[in-house]
Amino acid sequence: MTEPNRPSLTQGLRRAIRLRPDGVAVIDGAKRFSWRETADRVARLAAVLRARGLVDGGRVILLSLNTHRSIETFFVAIHAGGVVVPLNHRLSESELVSQVADAAPSIIILGDGFGHFASAFGQAAGGDPPIIWAGETDASGRAVAFEAELAAATPIDDAGREGDDLACILYTSGTTSAAKGVMLSHMNLIANTLNTVGALDLDETSVHLHHGPLFHVAPAARLFSVTHVGATHVLLPRFVAREVIAEIERTGITHATFVPTMFRALLDEPALAESDMQSLSVISYGSAPMPEALLDEMMAALPGARFLQSYGMTELSPVVTILGWRDHLPENRRPGLLRSAGQPVLLADVAVVGLDGNRLNDGQTGEIVARGPNRMLGYWNKPELTAEALRGGWMHTGDAGYFDEYGYLHVVDRLKDMIISGGENVYSQEVENAIATHPAVSECAVFGRPHPHWGEAVHAVVRLKSGAQVEAQGIIDYCRDRIAHYKCPRTLEIRTEPMPLSGANKILKAKLRAELLLSEAGLMGRSGQ
Amino acid sequence: MTEPNRPSLTQGLRRAIRLRPDGVAVIDGAKRFSWRETADRVARLAAVLRARGLVDGGRVILLSLNTHRSIETFFVAIHAGGVVVPLNHRLSESELVSQVADAAPSIIILGDGFGHFASAFGQAAGGDPPIIWAGETDASGRAVAFEAELAAATPIDDAGREGDDLACILYTSGTTSAAKGVMLSHMNLIANTLNTVGALDLDETSVHLHHGPLFHVAPAARLFSVTHVGATHVLLPRFVAREVIAEIERTGITHATFVPTMFRALLDEPALAESDMQSLSVISYGSAPMPEALLDEMMAALPGARFLQSYGMTELSPVVTILGWRDHLPENRRPGLLRSAGQPVLLADVAVVGLDGNRLNDGQTGEIVARGPNRMLGYWNKPELTAEALRGGWMHTGDAGYFDEYGYLHVVDRLKDMIISGGENVYSQEVENAIATHPAVSECAVFGRPHPHWGEAVHAVVRLKSGAQVEAQGIIDYCRDRIAHYKCPRTLEIRTEPMPLSGANKILKAKLRAELLLSEAGLMGRSGQ
Repeated sequence: MTEPNRPSLTQGLRRAIRLRPDGVAVIDGAKRFSWRETADRVARLAAVLRARGLVDGGRVILLSLNTHRSIETFFVAIHAGGVVVPLNHRLSESELVSQVADAAPSIIILGDGFGHFASAFGQAAGGDPPIIWAGETDASGRAVAFEAELAAATPIDDAGREGDDLACILYTSGTTSAAKGVMLSHMNLIANTLNTVGALDLDETSVHLHHGPLFHVAPAARLFSVTHVGATHVLLPRFVAREVIAEIERTGITHATFVPTMFRALLDEPALAESDMQSLSVISYGSAPMPEALLDEMMAALPGARFLQSYGMTELSPVVTILGWRDHLPENRRPGLLRSAGQPVLLADVAVVGLDGNRLNDGQTGEIVARGPNRMLGYWNKPELTAEALRGGWMHTGDAGYFDEYGYLHVVDRLKDMIISGGENVYSQEVENAIATHPAVSECAVFGRPHPHWGEAVHAVVRLKSGAQVEAQGIIDYCRDRIAHYKCPRTLEIRTEPMPLSGANKILKAKLRAELLLSEAGLMGRSGQ
Repeated sequence: MTEPNRPSLTQGLRRAIRLRPDGVAVIDGAKRFSWRETADRVARLAAVLRARGLVDGGRVILLSLNTHRSIETFFVAIHAGGVVVPLNHRLSESELVSQVADAAPSIIILGDGFGHFASAFGQAAGGDPPIIWAGETDASGRAVAFEAELAAATPIDDAGREGDDLACILYTSGTTSAAKGVMLSHMNLIANTLNTVGALDLDETSVHLHHGPLFHVAPAARLFSVTHVGATHVLLPRFVAREVIAEIERTGITHATFVPTMFRALLDEPALAESDMQSLSVISYGSAPMPEALLDEMMAALPGARFLQSYGMTELSPVVTILGWRDHLPENRRPGLLRSAGQPVLLADVAVVGLDGNRLNDGQTGEIVARGPNRMLGYWNKPELTAEALRGGWMHTGDAGYFDEYGYLHVVDRLKDMIISGGENVYSQEVENAIATHPAVSECAVFGRPHPHWGEAVHAVVRLKSGAQVEAQGIIDYCRDRIAHYKCPRTLEIRTEPMPLSGANKILKAKLRAELLLSEAGLMGRSGQ
């Protein structure tokens, strides 16, 4: 029998050329490339990679800020039969070097600001692989230039990888273990596209803003989705509220993804109210608990946009549940709905299991497990960890959660900084929700601090809106009018510096907690009372 | 390494229960079933099928009009590890019997009106398989009853088939060859869902009307799509314009599919203008050329609905290109756009090749070929035909077409009854478009009749709107004001009987042409002049 056809990421690129050959594929500052140009550049640089020794399944390291060459590199590596391995530039050199050694790449591509890694990466890779310089302004001595090589090359055909063939390795750094390389196949990443494009209403008329680093799974996966529907990519090197707002107006962005801290930053930026945001029709958010007050404020500020939340993880390519835009409409709200992660995407089975691995009933809390064609192939070079994570074919997320009576998933692990104070459970998010409604508050984080009497006491760190003035006690009193006294912060720090953020822009509560403990040990009372 | 997860049609059913456990799954006349009830019935009858000898991959024949049990049977067969084989009840007994013999089923399920086939089918199947009676009113002596068995059974778990496992065999009857059983896998049918739900805007809030027989690939594939998104199925036994309109109003239908003759029938029905059609938001059409005038009339009658056209074939599960709703908007129209079949769906590579199998450039006409995970596994029991159809992994559609400069596919084979008259090419559709704008005309078909001087002469068969009166010459003169004289019908028959229709509701021009030739041979001049 003829072999069945398998989905292929390069088919997505072919489709984009077919749908919008002369339509804009990528906007990167003043530069614009059509889909035809992008595909031509990809097929040329793929020829360079093959000529320089890349074989099927060979790894291509990418370390760069977001540029059009980053997007191209994802497709170049795959078109040439390779595997793209985008690294997190926020990591330390030693972390990066250990990932390069683990990936054992055949090719290394470096962008502006990362030329100095050439030698260390080359050594770590062992085989002295070619280094391609994808930057604008300078190059290390050994590197060959992306643009010069591309211009001289003859385009080649797609290597034809598809289905379960490895396409991408993304390193995730657990808090407790060394970084693991999550292996995602063509099928995995296409499954994520198929699982999300309908909910996102993403099609060839969409214009998608990438402000987040492409080494994270959410933007990396979105990169493939935006291409597959033949939409337009717009790149910003990083999230800066004022620049994001200007870009939305300038290029008519229709789709963007934000985390809660970015909602706050956008709302605090006077340009938001003064700019034409009408093009922005779909806003997805996730990766950190979203205070309802903040969401309401954002929805009021952008009444023409649909909001949706997604939940997932790198090992699931990443989305497994979505809380859709209809769930955000006032007429559909019910208590707790917006704290739910929503319902399974098209191709995902999602279940909650007990310690014995058996399924739990709705309402019972256990480990969230998921399966579907979006589930990773495994961890690179880590068969034991893979077997452990994928027991019975299900990805064991390590997140705790339950399904409610409406079939909506609740991830209680997002509330894992639950505070146990005097025997009472206090959920940080509930306290944060209360504080966030205070008109002077811009951002806040709530966690437990050790207390000799109650075990833990509720502590809050708050950043005020620019120009706002309020005492710590004023905010605590405000909370007492709104939530049970035992849930209210006993101590509250008003902070002027920005909150410490993770690579995924979550507030690093662990860091705030460590700072607090250090300041207490040093008898440097920084907290508000 | 842990095996990758594969898509599975039963996961679609599980998802529907998760999304809308108590939501309406199926409306069949006065009966309504929730998703929980439907899934329970499926898991029970699946137990019956296993107990009665169905093994993994065993075929389950279904011959029934559309009822809730038809929909259930599709999932029962698959849940039990089998393969559903829905037969076309419009075929002759000998055709049906030969398909049963070819499929060699383990189980036969018959609905009302088909009990008399029990004995012939049982014999054809060889092994004297159990026959399950899915009707309401009577049963053949040998049959076991669907409802009684179901009620007594204990639900079983899904057999776990997925991916490339065979799920469905659909017999297609070519005009020139014996019926071929098209083998569609779980992956094939899910790929079609993924390829179409975004364009159809089909989700858990949708209410889908099935008026077409489920043995055709388009409704059969849609059955899986509607289930996968957790929407509601509404069944009518057949298309009757007045009943369709009443059902749209009664159950709030959001999605329906029509062919051109149905557009005409709906427009000719006074109830259309008098009924509340506001729920109807998406109308898909296809399978026959759609006259622009008719489409415009329909769009004007239902201004709140989005229209889209799809092109495909059973072997492609079926959709490969879609002309989207935006292409139907007045501001996006350009000449010829509505005669295009649109652009490739998400997972399909579509190309046009010459006789040597090489790709042709845009603008050049050749054979349309397509590949993707929606491409069939092959023809049942026909390895040579399979190898021929799937050369190089591509489905060779047998349709001729070209891509235009905008990347839109045009299927000129739909115009294959092109008439060559006096050396000039006349495209039937263009003439039909002209005739269809005449206010008295309900339906028409244009084709060539042999002519001693010109080779062929343009001939039209026209059915008038009820109560309308016009002479054949009046319509011919009307055409002369609108299209080139050489394209106008030289002869035109005004017909009072309904047009002969194929199983897919296409006007059977071959039959009209044969009738014409017979009447000429018998010197029974029936045409208008």
